[in-house]
Amino acid sequence: MLEELKQKVYEANMELPRRGLITYTWGNVSGIDREKGLFVIKPSGVDYDVLKPSDMVVMDLEGNKVEGEMNPSSDTATHVELYNAFKEIGGIVHTHSPHATAWAQAGRALPCYGTTHADYFYGEIPCARNLTAEEIEEGYEMNTGRVIIETFQGKNPVYIPAVLCKNHGPFTWGKDAAEAVHNAVVLEEIARMNFMTELINPQAGPAPQCMQDKHFMRKHGPNAYYGQGK
Amino acid sequence: MLEELKQKVYEANMELPRRGLITYTWGNVSGIDREKGLFVIKPSGVDYDVLKPSDMVVMDLEGNKVEGEMNPSSDTATHVELYNAFKEIGGIVHTHSPHATAWAQAGRALPCYGTTHADYFYGEIPCARNLTAEEIEEGYEMNTGRVIIETFQGKNPVYIPAVLCKNHGPFTWGKDAAEAVHNAVVLEEIARMNFMTELINPQAGPAPQCMQDKHFMRKHGPNAYYGQGK
Amino acid sequence: MLEELKQKVYEANMELPRRGLITYTWGNVSGIDREKGLFVIKPSGVDYDVLKPSDMVVMDLEGNKVEGEMNPSSDTATHVELYNAFKEIGGIVHTHSPHATAWAQAGRALPCYGTTHADYFYGEIPCARNLTAEEIEEGYEMNTGRVIIETFQGKNPVYIPAVLCKNHGPFTWGKDAAEAVHNAVVLEEIARMNFMTELINPQAGPAPQCMQDKHFMRKHGPNAYYGQGK
Amino acid sequence: MLEELKQKVYEANMELPRRGLITYTWGNVSGIDREKGLFVIKPSGVDYDVLKPSDMVVMDLEGNKVEGEMNPSSDTATHVELYNAFKEIGGIVHTHSPHATAWAQAGRALPCYGTTHADYFYGEIPCARNLTAEEIEEGYEMNTGRVIIETFQGKNPVYIPAVLCKNHGPFTWGKDAAEAVHNAVVLEEIARMNFMTELINPQAGPAPQCMQDKHFMRKHGPNAYYGQGK
Repeated sequence: MLEELKQKVYEANMELPRRGLITYTWGNVSGIDREKGLFVIKPSGVDYDVLKPSDMVVMDLEGNKVEGEMNPSSDTATHVELYNAFKEIGGIVHTHSPHATAWAQAGRALPCYGTTHADYFYGEIPCARNLTAEEIEEGYEMNTGRVIIETFQGKNPVYIPAVLCKNHGPFTWGKDAAEAVHNAVVLEEIARMNFMTELINPQAGPAPQCMQDKHFMRKHGPNAYYGQGK
Repeated sequence: MLEELKQKVYEANMELPRRGLITYTWGNVSGIDREKGLFVIKPSGVDYDVLKPSDMVVMDLEGNKVEGEMNPSSDTATHVELYNAFKEIGGIVHTHSPHATAWAQAGRALPCYGTTHADYFYGEIPCARNLTAEEIEEGYEMNTGRVIIETFQGKNPVYIPAVLCKNHGPFTWGKDAAEAVHNAVVLEEIARMNFMTELINPQAGPAPQCMQDKHFMRKHGPNAYYGQGK
Repeated sequence: MLEELKQKVYEANMELPRRGLITYTWGNVSGIDREKGLFVIKPSGVDYDVLKPSDMVVMDLEGNKVEGEMNPSSDTATHVELYNAFKEIGGIVHTHSPHATAWAQAGRALPCYGTTHADYFYGEIPCARNLTAEEIEEGYEMNTGRVIIETFQGKNPVYIPAVLCKNHGPFTWGKDAAEAVHNAVVLEEIARMNFMTELINPQAGPAPQCMQDKHFMRKHGPNAYYGQGK
Repeated sequence: MLEELKQKVYEANMELPRRGLITYTWGNVSGIDREKGLFVIKPSGVDYDVLKPSDMVVMDLEGNKVEGEMNPSSDTATHVELYNAFKEIGGIVHTHSPHATAWAQAGRALPCYGTTHADYFYGEIPCARNLTAEEIEEGYEMNTGRVIIETFQGKNPVYIPAVLCKNHGPFTWGKDAAEAVHNAVVLEEIARMNFMTELINPQAGPAPQCMQDKHFMRKHGPNAYYGQGK
């Protein structure tokens, strides 16, 4: 079942080591079929060089395994929460990419210092709080998702398709698995640039709001004119 | 038309990912035929691994498309302004290369800390101011070019073939598209070195003027003696 | 003798340059056969591109060469001490990987800033003190091992399979040579992330203890649920 | 003439881009035949991907070209000075490798923070002063060599086979061209490690002298025991 989606999610997973975002098995990508209410995710702890499309695990939105011989990613419960709360998204990625993880470890939101950021993310990328001991006890991965959702109260997850989880690392998402990976690559790149920006000028401030508006909207708004159209 | 120039501009564009200056489609190179008053530029948002010489778009110096099936780079209006103002240049590059972009995000000119810089750029590489909300509204890409030109009042763009646009990234230029790319590579490398220089010694000062003169002139002056002659 | 172990130790050694942890010959891996009380180690100063499985040197736990035409690694006496003191370990690695070495040169333990660290190491990775002049005189490599052992008094080397030696570099270990190399790769990656973490936020603190417990135990405790089981 | 030496110097030059020390043509290697009093050096400004052994230029120790169709490296006069002053050396390298150049731009000697440094360099690597305007005028490249020699008064160039030239970059040397390149690689690596060391701990001090003695002497002294002997 869902062979085409499995293939796409497999390819999105394989893009992570190719883009240098992954050490060993530290990441996972999923993609959802909204009509069927099922999503496909990488199995837990399987090396990328032996991973096959048929290894992908099919899950429902209550977190039950529907198909697959392997255990799904240990972070599956986080994906379940995000798919249920963010109805517009079609793919989710988790990595420990080094620069984004460093910002997460530092416990800081990623400021919008420039157009590289504004081309993809509308405003700062928030850093979700730590889970309490009780939340960890009750269900670590589920509550990781719930704290992300709490962090996005009043924010549009389509306009800010990324979050940093404190002392952990980033999650990104998108309209499908491939776009979620694309956003993970961009997040890592701006985390790297912004790290250097503050060392070059500790007083650096965010890009002017009018510039952020312009760049985000020329790629994403109704009057977008970047690229070759749809 | 302009098949040879298209080939050269295509090759100059392909050099950007090869040199590690580009993530996804974040860059563009153009080259001009001064006699015909036409320039050739990369189409907007096309992946480098499917780009072909025949995809290059031909523009005139008033910003009209003369030939090509695709939309030209979204930054085309910036190129138009620069070609019109800087008559000696034959190629222009825009990237979001990480270290140069970090300096642009920091809003700081790149000091001349050494001979690596002085071999290519005579004095500091300026950082152009932000556009106003009105300038963005009136024509973002056109006014990006005009603010660069304003930044170069009293400066020689042939002697300083690069600029940082605040909260955005670098533009470089040269006698043709290939040299403009060469300068983009050098800019990224000195942005990286200078970033580290200030962290190693916050009191570091620019290279002595006599040293800057010597290095720039041994490669670029009328008595240049670097290389194998012309 | 020990042909299978030689092959495994050879492969573990070759993984070091492949993972970018090694410049020239700056590293060594060994693996032990606990039943026979013999271990196999890389020869000293041999280039990785000419290294063969049959070059591996067999040593006993008193530091005598049992088989092999070449001199064993100059750090062999350190391996002897560690195998004798840490009975549960089956492989040892020494590298000068740049970020871990920078922490060692800085003389600081590596704090646990996040789950990347907590997935592999339970608590901070200690930095062993410098040897005294007398200890260097008496037996530099042997006493390097003894100072590591001293550093682990009251600590569990299976739960913290790494150490930084002040002004020198890291040693890591594991259940076999391959796992010791895996831990060396992880150590380098967290040394890199943590370096950036402190520059992004000088007030960054360690990950909450409950989070460290959760991550270490979901991969290593009796109720581990990461991966596909054993 | 000197065909074997040309081949070796060619290969040493080609090792620079392979090791990532070189952007474009920013470097040169030479090697000397002490019996004949002639040295072989890379031609000026020739791309590494078209460079051939037969392009190497033969020079005498007064700086006269003895054989070769091309212009020798623009830094040839520096090599002449160093070969005349440092009688024990057989090869010289100049690069703009990024981390070593950052220290040179910062105008700081490279402290010996650890054994990676002490394995190759006995004590700190000095930073030579800037040339005066008169020295630049009189003979920039020649006086670059003379200021290096001045910097080594009271120091042993065989024990410290490297120097940083302020606001410029590093020179390294060795018993032949290959060893000089080896030292250039090591210098770049320790410049990188030491850069991070100071950011991790601004109070970091040099490795204890007894440790520096031990590491340098176990590889270089009369009782050296690293490697497989000579």
